[in-house]
Amino acid sequence: MPKLTSIIHLLTIPLFITASFSSHSSASGLPLVRDISNLPQDNFGRPGLSHITVAGSLMHGLKEVEVWLQTFAPGTHTPIHRHSCEEVFVVLKGSGTLYLAPSSHSKYPGKPQEFSIFSNSTFHIPVNDVHQLWNTNEEEDLQVLVVISRPPVKIFIYDEWLMPHTAAKLKFPYYWDEEWYQSTVKDEL
Amino acid sequence: MPKLTSIIHLLTIPLFITASFSSHSSASGLPLVRDISNLPQDNFGRPGLSHITVAGSLMHGLKEVEVWLQTFAPGTHTPIHRHSCEEVFVVLKGSGTLYLAPSSHSKYPGKPQEFSIFSNSTFHIPVNDVHQLWNTNEEEDLQVLVVISRPPVKIFIYDEWLMPHTAAKLKFPYYWDEEWYQSTVKDEL
Repeated sequence: MPKLTSIIHLLTIPLFITASFSSHSSASGLPLVRDISNLPQDNFGRPGLSHITVAGSLMHGLKEVEVWLQTFAPGTHTPIHRHSCEEVFVVLKGSGTLYLAPSSHSKYPGKPQEFSIFSNSTFHIPVNDVHQLWNTNEEEDLQVLVVISRPPVKIFIYDEWLMPHTAAKLKFPYYWDEEWYQSTVKDEL
Repeated sequence: MPKLTSIIHLLTIPLFITASFSSHSSASGLPLVRDISNLPQDNFGRPGLSHITVAGSLMHGLKEVEVWLQTFAPGTHTPIHRHSCEEVFVVLKGSGTLYLAPSSHSKYPGKPQEFSIFSNSTFHIPVNDVHQLWNTNEEEDLQVLVVISRPPVKIFIYDEWLMPHTAAKLKFPYYWDEEWYQSTVKDEL
């Protein structure tokens, strides 16, 4: 069975092929094919986080999906949060715990269920289910590829699992969309 | 900068933590966290292809996004095709060529532009642009993670780049959705 295990090989494409390749750019003005190693990354004020928008709504002009590459240092985690979009995770490296409070008619999320997540695993978060991801592995980074629908994401943040849904705080644009959201607004003036 | 390079580490989660984990299943009856190594894979009649539906519409109940893991042996490729959804690729391993005929008012796709794709690169296909992916590296498999919107995918296939758009053949459900599509229809009887 194929694994996500990836080994970077030196490219040996002959020059005569390379020379015929297009230098076409996408509608956003960015190159169509982008080296993920060269994309901007930031922790957006959260120590131990690395976030890269691999394919973004505001940044690259996508309308229906968005892809992130996120790395969590040991012991770090997302906030407790929810969003009205689908979200799929592919774990590229490390291990951790998913806390998930399935949607209910309660006024607050309540005690979440716990799921062990591990390298080469996948899972998805149902729309609006409150969840939190932790790197509970003390030895290794947790690296995940994240796919969301309906970008840019609108996130409701909870301080704790017993916080009422009505008290959750909407953060929009989200931290990694802020800079691009402002440029978009400016462009429309 | 983080790479997608992924090394499988032995999990060393203490038993007392593992024991508290949920055995909760998703709405589809499948486990919420799935080991990608254990998911069904097939070549669907295309030698040199390995397709795994990592997170599927018909298979796992997703409505807005779908994720595939595909591996192409040296020299193999997708058909020339288009679909009215967004598609994002993340190249996990290997290298190859993307052929892309940007949308135009012509009656056929015409000569495509060529883009070199490589390990740790990303690119997306605009809605309805005709495209084809080749593993042009003779030495190594090309492995990609593919994200689409609006699942299940409805694919129009072209025999060649000069085939009129009106002659392209709709294949729905697509090969990897056939079995699940039939089950879904049966469930509704």
